Amino acid sequence: MNFKQIIQEIYQKVGRINDPGELASYIPELATIDSTKFGVHISTIDGFNFGVGNCHDKFSIQSIAKVLSLCLAYQVLGEKIWLRLGVEPSGTAFNSLVQLEADSGIPRNPFINAGAIVISDILLSNLENPKEDFLAFVRNISNNPKLNYSNKIASSEKAIGFRNAALCNLIKSFGNIKNEPSAVLDFYFDLCSLEMNCKELSELFLFLANNGRNIFDNDTVLSKSQSKRINALMQTCGFYDESGEFAFKVGLPGKSGVGGGIIAIHPNQYAIAVWSPKLNEKGNSYKGMRFLEEFTTKTQLSIF
Amino acid sequence: MNFKQIIQEIYQKVGRINDPGELASYIPELATIDSTKFGVHISTIDGFNFGVGNCHDKFSIQSIAKVLSLCLAYQVLGEKIWLRLGVEPSGTAFNSLVQLEADSGIPRNPFINAGAIVISDILLSNLENPKEDFLAFVRNISNNPKLNYSNKIASSEKAIGFRNAALCNLIKSFGNIKNEPSAVLDFYFDLCSLEMNCKELSELFLFLANNGRNIFDNDTVLSKSQSKRINALMQTCGFYDESGEFAFKVGLPGKSGVGGGIIAIHPNQYAIAVWSPKLNEKGNSYKGMRFLEEFTTKTQLSIF
Amino acid sequence: MNFKQIIQEIYQKVGRINDPGELASYIPELATIDSTKFGVHISTIDGFNFGVGNCHDKFSIQSIAKVLSLCLAYQVLGEKIWLRLGVEPSGTAFNSLVQLEADSGIPRNPFINAGAIVISDILLSNLENPKEDFLAFVRNISNNPKLNYSNKIASSEKAIGFRNAALCNLIKSFGNIKNEPSAVLDFYFDLCSLEMNCKELSELFLFLANNGRNIFDNDTVLSKSQSKRINALMQTCGFYDESGEFAFKVGLPGKSGVGGGIIAIHPNQYAIAVWSPKLNEKGNSYKGMRFLEEFTTKTQLSIF
Amino acid sequence: MNFKQIIQEIYQKVGRINDPGELASYIPELATIDSTKFGVHISTIDGFNFGVGNCHDKFSIQSIAKVLSLCLAYQVLGEKIWLRLGVEPSGTAFNSLVQLEADSGIPRNPFINAGAIVISDILLSNLENPKEDFLAFVRNISNNPKLNYSNKIASSEKAIGFRNAALCNLIKSFGNIKNEPSAVLDFYFDLCSLEMNCKELSELFLFLANNGRNIFDNDTVLSKSQSKRINALMQTCGFYDESGEFAFKVGLPGKSGVGGGIIAIHPNQYAIAVWSPKLNEKGNSYKGMRFLEEFTTKTQLSIF
Repeated sequence: MNFKQIIQEIYQKVGRINDPGELASYIPELATIDSTKFGVHISTIDGFNFGVGNCHDKFSIQSIAKVLSLCLAYQVLGEKIWLRLGVEPSGTAFNSLVQLEADSGIPRNPFINAGAIVISDILLSNLENPKEDFLAFVRNISNNPKLNYSNKIASSEKAIGFRNAALCNLIKSFGNIKNEPSAVLDFYFDLCSLEMNCKELSELFLFLANNGRNIFDNDTVLSKSQSKRINALMQTCGFYDESGEFAFKVGLPGKSGVGGGIIAIHPNQYAIAVWSPKLNEKGNSYKGMRFLEEFTTKTQLSIF
Repeated sequence: MNFKQIIQEIYQKVGRINDPGELASYIPELATIDSTKFGVHISTIDGFNFGVGNCHDKFSIQSIAKVLSLCLAYQVLGEKIWLRLGVEPSGTAFNSLVQLEADSGIPRNPFINAGAIVISDILLSNLENPKEDFLAFVRNISNNPKLNYSNKIASSEKAIGFRNAALCNLIKSFGNIKNEPSAVLDFYFDLCSLEMNCKELSELFLFLANNGRNIFDNDTVLSKSQSKRINALMQTCGFYDESGEFAFKVGLPGKSGVGGGIIAIHPNQYAIAVWSPKLNEKGNSYKGMRFLEEFTTKTQLSIF
Repeated sequence: MNFKQIIQEIYQKVGRINDPGELASYIPELATIDSTKFGVHISTIDGFNFGVGNCHDKFSIQSIAKVLSLCLAYQVLGEKIWLRLGVEPSGTAFNSLVQLEADSGIPRNPFINAGAIVISDILLSNLENPKEDFLAFVRNISNNPKLNYSNKIASSEKAIGFRNAALCNLIKSFGNIKNEPSAVLDFYFDLCSLEMNCKELSELFLFLANNGRNIFDNDTVLSKSQSKRINALMQTCGFYDESGEFAFKVGLPGKSGVGGGIIAIHPNQYAIAVWSPKLNEKGNSYKGMRFLEEFTTKTQLSIF
Repeated sequence: MNFKQIIQEIYQKVGRINDPGELASYIPELATIDSTKFGVHISTIDGFNFGVGNCHDKFSIQSIAKVLSLCLAYQVLGEKIWLRLGVEPSGTAFNSLVQLEADSGIPRNPFINAGAIVISDILLSNLENPKEDFLAFVRNISNNPKLNYSNKIASSEKAIGFRNAALCNLIKSFGNIKNEPSAVLDFYFDLCSLEMNCKELSELFLFLANNGRNIFDNDTVLSKSQSKRINALMQTCGFYDESGEFAFKVGLPGKSGVGGGIIAIHPNQYAIAVWSPKLNEKGNSYKGMRFLEEFTTKTQLSIF
């Protein structure tokens, strides 16, 4: 399989598409991004690395960070985190609030906002210095001390985060948030403001293609079983109400963010990061989805 | 990997569990089954076959048949079937009717009843002799002329199928059913009444582990891409609102039925059928779920 | 109070309004009506009668008939009908199916379709010749032997009544329909096909302004308490999800139908019928609502 | 009509009932009330006053205050307040959040919490000293300078008001709250903490039985039309998802609060206040509802 040639070909082809997507507008700071950016980077567990386009430009990974905070909570507390949230797809965005009510404040999975907010609350209760400790965790698993939050993005989101405040208070009313809502939300917005480029993103997530172990020193981040479970969750819940479509068309576990980034994992093989800021109607990168669909079609390497 | 030994061990262990599940009660005929039945059978693409327990007793495969009717519609009409239904998980059973309304009569996926009813309508419009042609299709892909419907089960379900009649009429009111609701429902209940044993079930589904080709004569049932997509759908939607849990704990594409059967697929490796009639709260075989969870844990062979 | 002059003035004024409404389109036969028709008729309990415009043209009273079938069921069975349906407003049309599910097949009130279908089922179980007996009841309370069903309208509706079939089967699945769904629906569509003119309609409903007694021979149709309760129900539930608006702006108990008719009751004073076929967005006669709003404003005679 | 004798008789009868209700538990301070309290007071527009039981004990009027804040907003801004909220019953409590989403942050009516929060926001934007001005308004319409807030109740509610914080932030996310959510909530909890006794309550609401005019100096609080509209709203929306039941059984406009108080209005006749702290399943005073049902049955004086 010649990844380099395939990636270059698809990058050319998808790059020429007239992108009908739109920039995320609800976070003011994200709306100022150059919408023509398009980068791809692959990292394989046998050491191959290749990127094209704007693969060295940093962007806000947003919801992709939900996978990392989940991994840290899973590492620290193990299976008991599942007492406070589920592992099921949520159906539609539309149902989010009514589901929380029907399920008595137990979010359906860790990748919808409600679930990620509960994970933030768990970390807040269990880390000494949550903001610093989470950053250390992320830097450590990718051996990359340069990774950092964007205060500008975090501030931009905090100023208009009323819907997340609604979710957090609703969950709190059911007793499933232990800390002050404002502290939980502050931490949550910090997590989502992590920024990095495609190369760093694919390197960071490679441990999930490697059964939970760091690629550079073989340290265990998660057990093999935990790592498989994170991948399963990304497969069923990683793309909001387009998760089924992504499994159907791409066939890899993955996670998207409203900054336009997508990470996808082929277990035992590679992690691939794609970034293009314009989003489709479901809130996932239009070109990112198209690139990955072509990529698994061409390589004939989906997990199914 | 010694499948035989692993299956025997887990069969013993799970067999001893005090099963808290209950027989499906809403179809009168299903409530008369011997609830202690427990059978398992594996068929691999390299020709290995092994079964334990009641693996030669026939049972009603019920919703597992939804995969087969989908495959036939997919074979006959290709991607255009997706104009009439989606590929997304549905969230909760609770939402089924309101989702149909919000989505203007387009079912979320082919494995919820609404979706399987639309597939039945599609087959009714496109097959000469729907009931006979579907049976011929099923017999053909498994090279098994003995497979058949159970008239007793079908009749039992037709007599009390008011909820499915509600779904079918609701979809019809949106124009997404083309035939008479009563004819669609008759055919749908016939499909669901297919019966076979675990051995036959694992053999029947082996083509989905074999990239869409029959194992016995290598004929193409579905293209490689189609076959992968059916597997992806089973992964995200195969177990109602326990689909996420099944991906999380078992990590294989699969499909369950209220008769207590489960089929699971490991692409490029095997199909495994489990049957135990008592169901957990989500309507999936209690022992079947437990068996498969242990099986992928022991073999360390999930797709993630 | 000079009703005659006030009615003439408002009739002129509202008649000149450019009606933005639309004819009901879902029942083919209703879509053929002359949309410029506009009639009004008032009948008071002290014997005053006055009408203007097309007040002698017959039209299909549709959902207004739900009040009459409820009155007959109430007369026959008394308070025990409330074991099978409620007396609460339903919120929005949008919620109808999900409410039925959440409420286990108990419709929220007798004026939403689900509730009227349950009332039809009750009558079917308790009348010797349901269709004839109901007609006799209606003719009797208004001393008008000419009232009748429209077979054309009933047939037109039966041919496309899939949504009502969905409701009826859903309720049946919860056990709250006792007869065959097809028989219940047939009777229901017959009831809704009743036709009469504004004069007949205001005379027919006058007993509800007269504490449950016929105006012409003082016979008791309903007890005083029952009559007040029917009025209360019309006030809170008579106009689908515009019931609050009608109470707010008009301030009288009333009921509308998709044929463009509206009946309103002023207890101890009068019944007034308005007909204009073009409907507003909520499915109530545009000019009918406007007329009645002006009428209670001018007369300063709402019940509040 | 001998109100005095009727009230005494019903008070005796209902007082003997074994009250199956429960104290409101979600506001800690309310759970400490003596649950055996039971008081009634009537004030008529022709000057008759009569009370029994604990009619001089102060209690927290809670949601009854929503009528007063609505009246003040209506007085100050007129019909344009309806650009920001509706006048329709909401169906069920269960739907509150999903309705806000479906209706883009426009609450269905001013008596559900969402609507009362929007009214609080409107007052906050339009009053110089909101807390003081509202109190002055209330004191003024009842000529009672002793009326006041309870800081203890307000503090108790502020400490646990996460669900209201969820509602307020959700509405804010749709742009229908103009001030800071925390300021809006503070003011809202202050309003709800108003306390008074049954005598004061019936006197305070008498203007709504008097076409919007004060009884003691005939000053106009609201226009006749506005006053009728407030009554209509109480009729259709005053008792949460028991509003239909109250119209059906009692037949008067009214409003309840979780403190166990109920006010009911007979236009052109009287205002009657009932207080008994134990609530039925829908959150309305059990004995209060029973008392008023018997009262309008005995007096035969409902508005229908």
